[in-house]
Amino acid sequence: MSAVRVVLVEPKNEGNVGAVARAMRNFDVADLVLVRPCPIGDEARKRAMHGADVLEAARAVETFEEGLRGADLVVGTSGIDTSNERKFARISVTPRDLASKVAAMDGTLALVFGREDFGLLEEEIRACDLLVTIPASEDYPILNLSHAATILLYELFAGRPSRRPRRKASGLEKDRLLEALGDLMEATDYPAHKRSRTKVMFRRLMGRAVPSAWEFHALMGVLQRATKRIQRLERGR
Amino acid sequence: MSAVRVVLVEPKNEGNVGAVARAMRNFDVADLVLVRPCPIGDEARKRAMHGADVLEAARAVETFEEGLRGADLVVGTSGIDTSNERKFARISVTPRDLASKVAAMDGTLALVFGREDFGLLEEEIRACDLLVTIPASEDYPILNLSHAATILLYELFAGRPSRRPRRKASGLEKDRLLEALGDLMEATDYPAHKRSRTKVMFRRLMGRAVPSAWEFHALMGVLQRATKRIQRLERGR
Repeated sequence: MSAVRVVLVEPKNEGNVGAVARAMRNFDVADLVLVRPCPIGDEARKRAMHGADVLEAARAVETFEEGLRGADLVVGTSGIDTSNERKFARISVTPRDLASKVAAMDGTLALVFGREDFGLLEEEIRACDLLVTIPASEDYPILNLSHAATILLYELFAGRPSRRPRRKASGLEKDRLLEALGDLMEATDYPAHKRSRTKVMFRRLMGRAVPSAWEFHALMGVLQRATKRIQRLERGR
Repeated sequence: MSAVRVVLVEPKNEGNVGAVARAMRNFDVADLVLVRPCPIGDEARKRAMHGADVLEAARAVETFEEGLRGADLVVGTSGIDTSNERKFARISVTPRDLASKVAAMDGTLALVFGREDFGLLEEEIRACDLLVTIPASEDYPILNLSHAATILLYELFAGRPSRRPRRKASGLEKDRLLEALGDLMEATDYPAHKRSRTKVMFRRLMGRAVPSAWEFHALMGVLQRATKRIQRLERGR
């Protein structure tokens, strides 16, 4: 995605608008459009925190259509999903689906959020290319406006190609750790028929934990130290 | 996950507490614990909306330890990730990793959120089995408290499994494993100044691997066997 725009339609609570501005800043999105918003004052600025610049630069427009101008893909949000195919206009994808769909897309994506109480109107929903519904409790699926925006912005951010990797232990280090475990089992006369099972268990654990090189060395240190201690004591007997 | 608990440590803004209660209701989580919270009044209730019952039932406690009582896996949240391997206590996973790691887990998961301004203290972080960092802007990675809670609750909700759970080790078993490691370090005269660091490293590894009860016992067996061997040999000298 080259650009994301957040469009809030008739927000009634300025605190929510400020909180959305902060969330946008948290996920590197800067383009905020407000369609016929409530007055924006101190409470909004307070809630925006370091997103104050996003709030400051927000454009207020009079019509829904104006808010979407220049957008290449218009994504509406709805708290109500439907499995009724006749109500196709309400059929939606999850935030994660959206993120993977647009990952390789160029252009401007407009994320459209409706009113705190009524959401988007039927005709506004029809003007969207795609609807997203956040999976949530059946009892109470209606999220706070800034919470809904946060989840969508987070998913779009998380869906971007990843950044700096941490150095993971190499296969060689892993083998040496398993060897150190084997040595310790040997030194403690660990029952022979259990050894290979325990080694596999350990390998699986490490596989799930994905230790860093440093963690591998620390762990190896503990095991080797115990093995050497036992060997030395036994020689001294 | 059979149960999720949200623990807020010294929240300063009652509006945030209310907003967290709402998010919990949105994702079917009901157990809220507040450690030395600010006064909770009208603003919190207003923001909680249909989460008012969650807020009403919240328990206020005086200490961090009380807040974690009975939790089998303690997950801390941190706005700061590190790629410095020596600062392993700060090495964290993503919310999505967490969701997939605990999907098949039994027991109580405590999600711990720190203060709005200072987050969690160093000793609180050390008491966590696992740290989660929400991937966010490098310029401004600090999310609003209820936004951070919303993302984690959303991921846990979205990651719920349909398959039959494997039995995971309880908090008690984890403590016993750490004790066994401590005993082994003691028996091998492991450098005293490195012990607590190595213990935290091990806790983190286990937190990321989320071992089953069987795996815990196998691992404990290896460590205890080595410790006993050393103790017996030393007595025999």
